Amino acid sequence: MERLEQYREIIRKLLQDYCGDDRGEPDSEIQMICDRDRDHYQLVSLGWQGHRRFYTVLMHLDIKNGKIWIQRNETDRLIAQELVSMGVLREDIVLGLQPEYVRADSGYSLV
Amino acid sequence: MERLEQYREIIRKLLQDYCGDDRGEPDSEIQMICDRDRDHYQLVSLGWQGHRRFYTVLMHLDIKNGKIWIQRNETDRLIAQELVSMGVLREDIVLGLQPEYVRADSGYSLV
Repeated sequence: MERLEQYREIIRKLLQDYCGDDRGEPDSEIQMICDRDRDHYQLVSLGWQGHRRFYTVLMHLDIKNGKIWIQRNETDRLIAQELVSMGVLREDIVLGLQPEYVRADSGYSLV
Repeated sequence: MERLEQYREIIRKLLQDYCGDDRGEPDSEIQMICDRDRDHYQLVSLGWQGHRRFYTVLMHLDIKNGKIWIQRNETDRLIAQELVSMGVLREDIVLGLQPEYVRADSGYSLV
């Protein structure tokens, strides 16, 4: 349970750190979305460039059975490496956005 | 405050109702993501079709200053109409995914 809380805190820090890069354009925002009950964590960039709408999920991480699943990463950040450097065990990280045959050789967890 | 709670409950019902359509394919899931503190509400469909990854935000609603913003809708549901039928005032709905010149003629709120 203690480790689970630690992982939740690490994910929040990771997302908040990225939000800090938001330059605060008037018609755009980066939203941090944290669902503690279901352990879903996300960053979304959305807004307008003139009349053009944009909407991108930048990062999405879940915690399932005590492991952190990276479900999406549209940034240049190496999330798995960052998680390890912040104290997450390699065997507790699943590269959910990679097919299983890639995960098998990743050094991270398969599921 | 009471209306805010009512709107939160209506959004949750709307999302849960859609989740009920999930046929539960083995390699896919529909996630409901609710951030009560920041009032962001989302449905994400993600998973695998063979080796092909898919990830789509189906719906995204926010509550800002007492109004419900529809930020994204990749379903065939008429979310604004459904919200009205569930008890949300038209003037408390913002079609955030439409540019302002469209919103102005929508019968819903501009901001």
